[in-house]
Amino acid sequence: MKVATLHTAWGDTAAVAAQDTWRAIDGYADLSQLWARADREELVSRAAESGAAVEPLGFATPFPAPGKVICCGLNYGDHIAEVGRDVPEHPALFTKFADSLCADGDDIVVRDSTKVDWEAELVVVVGAELRRAGPEEADSAISGWTVANDISMRDWQRRTPQWFQGKAWDRSSPVGPWVLGPEDFDPDGGSRVRCLINDEEVQCGDPGTLIFGAPALLSYISTFTTLRPGDLVLTGTPGGVGLGMDPPRFLTDGDTVITEVTGLGRLTNTIRFV
Amino acid sequence: MKVATLHTAWGDTAAVAAQDTWRAIDGYADLSQLWARADREELVSRAAESGAAVEPLGFATPFPAPGKVICCGLNYGDHIAEVGRDVPEHPALFTKFADSLCADGDDIVVRDSTKVDWEAELVVVVGAELRRAGPEEADSAISGWTVANDISMRDWQRRTPQWFQGKAWDRSSPVGPWVLGPEDFDPDGGSRVRCLINDEEVQCGDPGTLIFGAPALLSYISTFTTLRPGDLVLTGTPGGVGLGMDPPRFLTDGDTVITEVTGLGRLTNTIRFV
Repeated sequence: MKVATLHTAWGDTAAVAAQDTWRAIDGYADLSQLWARADREELVSRAAESGAAVEPLGFATPFPAPGKVICCGLNYGDHIAEVGRDVPEHPALFTKFADSLCADGDDIVVRDSTKVDWEAELVVVVGAELRRAGPEEADSAISGWTVANDISMRDWQRRTPQWFQGKAWDRSSPVGPWVLGPEDFDPDGGSRVRCLINDEEVQCGDPGTLIFGAPALLSYISTFTTLRPGDLVLTGTPGGVGLGMDPPRFLTDGDTVITEVTGLGRLTNTIRFV
Repeated sequence: MKVATLHTAWGDTAAVAAQDTWRAIDGYADLSQLWARADREELVSRAAESGAAVEPLGFATPFPAPGKVICCGLNYGDHIAEVGRDVPEHPALFTKFADSLCADGDDIVVRDSTKVDWEAELVVVVGAELRRAGPEEADSAISGWTVANDISMRDWQRRTPQWFQGKAWDRSSPVGPWVLGPEDFDPDGGSRVRCLINDEEVQCGDPGTLIFGAPALLSYISTFTTLRPGDLVLTGTPGGVGLGMDPPRFLTDGDTVITEVTGLGRLTNTIRFV
């Protein structure tokens, strides 16, 4: 399964890639609406067989209205080392809003920050309600995978002990471009989480080496709050962020940020200082 | 204006206190629905004049579906001292979910934490869309005030540098019981933010002494994300939390927590360990 939220000449639509084209999942404007449906797999299968072919004008952020967007920091050994932290005993969690998300191709418009950094990440899409779930139940609730860049305003992130205010800037975090189902992507299959700035590779990590893998993260979070279909969990970033460089390096106006999970998908976004 | 979301025999309804009774704001099941309406003041006025009188069975959480619930830590001098922090140059912000909220009278059911602490707080209700707003625009967007207790699972809060995971437990944070309009409550008017455990006063602070007052908080937050009608901002807790006691003191099964802002309202909740 490869699904997306597409911009088309007739508005946004959920769509599935099948028979060498994108096919509309009729009646669903985006994947947030589709994921709210218990019969979404049937809807996707039906659209793959007989949905109208659509011409994408571009990708929208796949889930424009997730109830929860939860991010894990400090989840790759090399990233923990570069920011001078200890390996955590528990996942370090923080949040973004639905408003924080943008799409492949979108400009990331920056004001009021001068230390804009990159964090390529693998994202897990929750597919079932989870509350106090063990890792096995959590694993079976993984309904898809996508790519994100947890763009971080380091000046704001470091103003207080709480990272949130550097992490939740409106339309700052690209997600997408599409979602692959669990049968089509395996985080332990040798994939790489990569970030390229103007075609220079700055990050390349193996999501198979996550300290807290996706089932562990979903299980842990579900101890204190309910996860629901369409919620997103960002699994953390590997080494190679700008903050960890000597001297630190940050994004500037016009930089192109490519965020990729090999075998899954690639986002291209341009930084615009205004 | 004094408005609430009431439980009634016919389901939940938004209501206004007028003419010595609660009067239904017809067609609005809760204040989240009401705040989404640009003409909410007119709807409230009309209900105050001619709405059907309703018999409340209890209070629901006033805003069951805020898009954003943002909390400020370290915002009273005595609380900063008791937790051994420095006075911050910027607001320390973190988030809760809509799922984190509960109502006056609700039991706060606890599993998996043994260090449950209290944090009585004044809450500001956002009344207009705010983005990159100055303090004056933010001040004029304050549409109401209510009370909350930012119940905190200190063991989880301190597992990592990020407080969020100790702060966003489902149905742990009572809010309400009602909302007073800005014409009916003035945080600089000598009010007190109080918490009582089993009738013993443990917190009593003056919201007029907030380091970052409500307009400053809304303005600051709006630099990075859009605030919208019905969003909630918890303004921080005064000294007297259990963590600051010697030895630290935490809530136990059966404790009654009273959270009050004098001149505004009072919440009563019981802790239940299961």
